[in-house]
Formats: sequence, C-alpha cells, structure tokens
Amino acid sequence: MPDLDVVVVGGGILGLASAYYIKSLHGELSVAVIERGRDVGQGNTARSVGGYRQGIFTSYVNRVLAETTIQHLREAEASGETSLNMREVGYLILLDDNRLKNVETVVETFLKEGKAILLNPETLSEKLHMRTDFTGDEEAMLMGLSNIKAGLFAPRCGFLDVEKVVNLYKKRCIDVGVELILGKRVEKLLLEPENPLGIPREPRAWQKVRVAGVVADGEVIKAGKVVVATGSWTPQLLDPLGVDCFIKAKKRQLFVISAEGELQRLLTNTWDGGRPMPMMFFPNGLYIVPRMSDKAFWVSLTDEFGRGFGLDDEPEPSYYLDNVYPPLVKYYPQFLNARPSSMWAGTYSMNYLDGNPLIFRFLNCLVVTGASGSGVMKSDAIGRIAEAALFGKEYAMLHGGVKFEVSRLGVENRRVDKEYFIL
Amino acid sequence: MPDLDVVVVGGGILGLASAYYIKSLHGELSVAVIERGRDVGQGNTARSVGGYRQGIFTSYVNRVLAETTIQHLREAEASGETSLNMREVGYLILLDDNRLKNVETVVETFLKEGKAILLNPETLSEKLHMRTDFTGDEEAMLMGLSNIKAGLFAPRCGFLDVEKVVNLYKKRCIDVGVELILGKRVEKLLLEPENPLGIPREPRAWQKVRVAGVVADGEVIKAGKVVVATGSWTPQLLDPLGVDCFIKAKKRQLFVISAEGELQRLLTNTWDGGRPMPMMFFPNGLYIVPRMSDKAFWVSLTDEFGRGFGLDDEPEPSYYLDNVYPPLVKYYPQFLNARPSSMWAGTYSMNYLDGNPLIFRFLNCLVVTGASGSGVMKSDAIGRIAEAALFGKEYAMLHGGVKFEVSRLGVENRRVDKEYFIL
Repeated sequence: MPDLDVVVVGGGILGLASAYYIKSLHGELSVAVIERGRDVGQGNTARSVGGYRQGIFTSYVNRVLAETTIQHLREAEASGETSLNMREVGYLILLDDNRLKNVETVVETFLKEGKAILLNPETLSEKLHMRTDFTGDEEAMLMGLSNIKAGLFAPRCGFLDVEKVVNLYKKRCIDVGVELILGKRVEKLLLEPENPLGIPREPRAWQKVRVAGVVADGEVIKAGKVVVATGSWTPQLLDPLGVDCFIKAKKRQLFVISAEGELQRLLTNTWDGGRPMPMMFFPNGLYIVPRMSDKAFWVSLTDEFGRGFGLDDEPEPSYYLDNVYPPLVKYYPQFLNARPSSMWAGTYSMNYLDGNPLIFRFLNCLVVTGASGSGVMKSDAIGRIAEAALFGKEYAMLHGGVKFEVSRLGVENRRVDKEYFIL
Repeated sequence: MPDLDVVVVGGGILGLASAYYIKSLHGELSVAVIERGRDVGQGNTARSVGGYRQGIFTSYVNRVLAETTIQHLREAEASGETSLNMREVGYLILLDDNRLKNVETVVETFLKEGKAILLNPETLSEKLHMRTDFTGDEEAMLMGLSNIKAGLFAPRCGFLDVEKVVNLYKKRCIDVGVELILGKRVEKLLLEPENPLGIPREPRAWQKVRVAGVVADGEVIKAGKVVVATGSWTPQLLDPLGVDCFIKAKKRQLFVISAEGELQRLLTNTWDGGRPMPMMFFPNGLYIVPRMSDKAFWVSLTDEFGRGFGLDDEPEPSYYLDNVYPPLVKYYPQFLNARPSSMWAGTYSMNYLDGNPLIFRFLNCLVVTGASGSGVMKSDAIGRIAEAALFGKEYAMLHGGVKFEVSRLGVENRRVDKEYFIL
C-alpha cells in the first residue's frame, strides 16, 4: 500500500498549482507536496521577476497558457480571494534593425491583433527619455549597440508579486486538503518492479517497472503516482533513471538599483497621458523593470553564449559591472555610476527546443518542467494541464472554459510553435 | 588568422565522414580532425555492433540516411575501393502482443512496401529453433515474458565490419588532404568576441561572439569553423557554452558467447533455403547477433528505465548474469550455462526526442550528434549533410542523387518522424 496516492515533488509555483488541481478534482485521493525549502515557493519561483505578458508570445500555446492564467488571477483578485498587486505597466520590446528583421512577421501579427503598438524613436526618446541613436558614439558602436528603430509596446503586460501567487495556491492547496511536507529533500525516485520476484538486485532490466515513490532525506515515501515539478533540478532526479526531460538549468541574475535623484525622476516619469514607465527589453538582452513600490529599478542582462548550464545560483557583483552596466548607461545615461544595493540569482529550467513548457508522462510519473522563465505567468494553466495529463485525459479545461489538448505539451506528439520572445 | 579553416572535433565515424565531404568539396580549405584516441574510430564507433538496416525505420529520414549510406558502401565495395565484410543475414524483430499493438501500422507499411515479411511462431520455432510459447512456464510469466506472436523479418539488413568503414573514410580523408591530429583531447571550445575591444574579461555578455577555435591539451588551435562531432561527449563541450545539443549518453554493453556444441549447431543453422541465422531483437530489449566468422554470438539487452545517463563505459559482468542471461536462456535454452568469453561497453548519443540524428549550426559551429546507436549505418549521408549544413546550403546531395533538405535535421525547423525502432 502506498503512503500517498499522489506525491508532487517540488513546492514551486508549478508543483503547487498541479497539486491544487489534482486534489481539487480528485478529493478522494491523498495528495502531498514535498518541498526541500522551509516553505513552499522559496526556490527559483521566489527569484522570479514576476513579469507577465498577454498576447506577445510567438508560440500560440504560450499565449493561451499565459492569457488564461492571467485572466484567472485577475478574477481571483476581483472575487476578493487574493490581492496580487498586478501592475500593468506594459512590456516595451526595443527593436534594432537586426531584431526587427528576425521578428518582423510576428510583430505584424501582434499589431494586427491589437496586442501591441509600435513606438517610434522620437517617442522613445522624448517620452521615455531613452537614448536610441548611437550615431557617432564610437564606444557604443564598438560595443555592438545599434540604433533603436522602434519599440513594440504591449500594454496588457506587467508584473505581479510572485509571493502572493505562491500564497494563493498554497492556501488553496491547504483548503482542499493537500498535505505540505516541508524541509524534506527528495534525493531520488524509487524504481521498483511491477511484479517483485524477491530476487536480489531488482528491478532487473527485463522487468516491467514503476516509480513506487520517492526517497526523501533517506526515508522512503511510497506513492501511487509521482509528479516531478522540480524545475531546474529535474535532470538530477530523472537522469539516474535514464529519462530525458529536455531542459537545461541556466542562471539568471537580478540587480536592484535604488532610484534617487535623476533616477527617481525617471522612475516616476509618465507618458501617453499618465502611463507609468514600462518594463523594457533591449536588443542585446538588457532589461529594466521599474519598481515604483520599491523606489528602485531591477536590471539585468540575459546572457546566452558563454553562460554555461548549471545549478549555481550565486549572484555575481562583477556581472553587473561587466555586463549590465555598460549597455545600461548607454541606453539610459541617468544610470551613470549607479551600483546595485542588492542582487540575487536563480536558474531557469530552459527548454531550448521550442521554449514552451514540457508536461509528459513516463511509467506512472508526470514531469512538469521547461517553463523557461515564464512559469509564474502560466502557472494556473500548467497546473490544470498537469492534472489532466496525470489522469490520462485528452483535454484540460483552462480558465474561461478554454479546451487545451494535453498532448501538445508532451514529448511523443508535441505540437507547439517555437517561442522567439524568451525575455 | 586561424590555424585552420575547419576543425572537426572527434574522429569517430561521423567526424571522419563529415571531414571527408567538407574537404573533398572545398579542396582550397585546410581541414583537420582532432581525435583524442591514438587512432581514429577507436571510441564509441569501435564498440558498435555494426548492424545496418534498410527499410525498417519508422522515421522516413532515418530510412533515407541508412539506405543511401548502405548503397554507397555497397558501391564502394563493388568498385574495389574497400571490402566491408557486409553480412546480410537480415534483422528479425520478434513481436509479442504488446509490441505488435504498438507498431502495427508501421509493420503493415513495411510489409506492403516489401521491406519485410512476417514469420509465424511455427517457423520461428521449427526453422530458427526459438522458444516462442511460454504457456505454463511460471518462471517465464513471472519474468514478464509473453508468447512470441510473430517475427518481422527484414532481409536487407545485417552487419558489417565497423573498423573497415572507419578505414574507408580515414583513407579518403588522407587522400583528399584532411589532416588527422591524433592523441589530442579537445577540452573546450574557445569563445571570443567578434570585435575584440582589448578590455578584461572578454567576451562580455553584450558582445557578439564566435567560436574562435578549440583548446586541445592546453594548446589553442584557431579555426574559421568548428564541427563538433563528439557523440556522447558533446554536452561536455557545449554545456559550458550554454548550448543545448539535446542528447544524453547511455551505456550499452556487448557480451561474446563462444559457440560450442549445441550453440555451434545453432550458429550454423540455416533456414529458408540456406539463409544464415539472422540478428534477433526480442520484445524486452534482448538481442542476439550470430557471428559466424568469430564462431560466437554477441548478446545483450537494451535497458531503458534504471540505466542512468552517463559516460561510464565499463562493461559489467553482473549485467550479463542478471539481465541478459535469464531471458536469453528462456528464448534459447541452447544458451544454458553459457558465460561470456569477453565483453565491452560504449555509450550511445541518444536523442530521446525523436531518435533521429541532430545536425545544427550555432554561431560559426556545426553540431553533428544524436545518432542514437545507428551512426555507422548512416555515416555517409550524415557526412554529406554536415558539409551542406556547415556551408549554409539548403540541400545536401546524398548517394544516388537523393536530395535532402538540410533543415530537417536541425533544431529550428526540425521535420522528422519519431523513430520507434531503436534497436
């Protein structure tokens, strides 16, 4: 007899949302989340920027996941269930000639669908006080910066308090009776023969096997089904079983710049009849998040080539100085001499195939991973799809009655568009 | 100035075939293969079974790659260029109810296309002396063996001497002027800024980068283009750059059983008017290769769940006893008490997404990997596609004038069917 019907490994936002929908739709089953942290949502979920966007994914699937989730969260707010502090400041994606060329078709679609508008360099410069023209700036040219030709502004985007989303699903989990097992680290999944023979060294390679549970801090916890929702750590659990989860862990850092003097004026600047400053994403990976409530900017730069895969999550002060500051001060000279007052880092579970989440079964397990840095804004949809996938349903019903074919996010018969806007 | 125009990292069969086609189509370029072994083809290529098959892949792409390669090798033999000792004994894939159900549609296609015929249990038992019926054998039932319902026999398959294929491409490489740099281990790929600024810690994350060459045994070798053809070791070179190659290394073992007495009679048995014993693949992963010339059987069992990923390539005597022998002696009681006289192991570069090779560019590099255990039989086609991909051609011309769209095997716009017959 298993100790539990369903064990969800990992109490990040995706584990919580999955556990909630599993338990709420299968009240008769015992469901537990095992989390190594002292509380849920304290791993990479907590290090997230908390950005959310509607409309501006190149993958249709990503759009559906994010839009239904954001709509769900909005309605949870409207109903008084929670307050997520959603600040819909908009996403502003800056385009130079090169980026413009690469995303031309999708940009046209976004514009046609009314998901975004295009701002010209004059608006960017006059209203958002950004430097867009580097003509004659030899240093900028050597750095590879080129003139900003346009800004794609998507108003239905912004950021929210990740902690509050975590608390929403934590409370829901507790309310429906999900057990939260905290401070326990799952070391491995327990592979057992379906029909034990009582011989040494089982399971033998010719035996049919199942995942009988997990080993957590040396203790065996038996389970009928196991959901692996361990984000970047997923290969640590699945590699020893010989199951590929198709993700790599990539470090991402955030630096907090207190907004004083000229920076304070920039932070409180408004445009377009009272809009606050948007989240800004520059062509070379630099991004700026205006955090009015913290009187600060969060800044970073998404590095690709040369940032090796791995689970290290120490922030690097030199990373700010070497990599973030030089382009930052070019686009916004207001940041001259700005230094971070604090910083942190986490890892994304990156799916480099197509940038969409992966939700697939093997044996009696379900793997939920590959959110590629946009898990929070897709959490509600992913939780619902995880429930459907675990119980072999063909469709999941997302918020608002949107029917979603579960196999699209699987491996066997995966059907997703590639995501080019991994911001 | 680079030391070389093209460096191919890895002198396995795929590196050799790639280097050969690159140099033979671009005679003006300096091309070198860097191999850590004392000779080429001594890594996982040498540990291969050397099986080849025509027709019976579920992936159309895999069929094309194998068929054009085998045809090419046949003609190389016919022309007197080489002798590969191709023994077309046929592949016999044994089907129980479960496997039959899973592959029903493809089996029908193979039969319709004349790629294979179906043998009934009586033929298997009477002509091939195999046990197919385990009714009443409680031990077999406990082991999960079920009755063999049919055998899919594909005659245009067999095995060849891998060493001779290696020597063919080695000689060709030397003939066209590829430099073979042996006994040098490439430790890493050298990432450099496209436009160096002469500042510390370049490349910075905002700089455009290229792979300027490799570091081999501490020595920098600069190259205009780099081809990474390192099979299972590919993640070791690409992970530090933050480039996913979508493969996992999986250990595979082979055990040699000398054929004496009853086993000798089995080895020399003929059927269907003089056909030798075929290579046999059983439902639970067990396979048997009759090696007349060695007076031996090669046997093993392909283990999936529980065989963790990794580069360990030590053969395990206990693996034979625990995992190979028990089902082996059930299907063929002639193996009673048979013990291996020798054994070896290697690793497959497994692509678990779709089981087809991966040939894709990043920066000025080309990655050729993921052959998933069938690289030798696809080597000629892969070499030609690698050349085309490296030089940005849309199509590669395979043997016999078969036009192949290079992007099918890439990541960006991958178009392959899933391979279900990874044997």
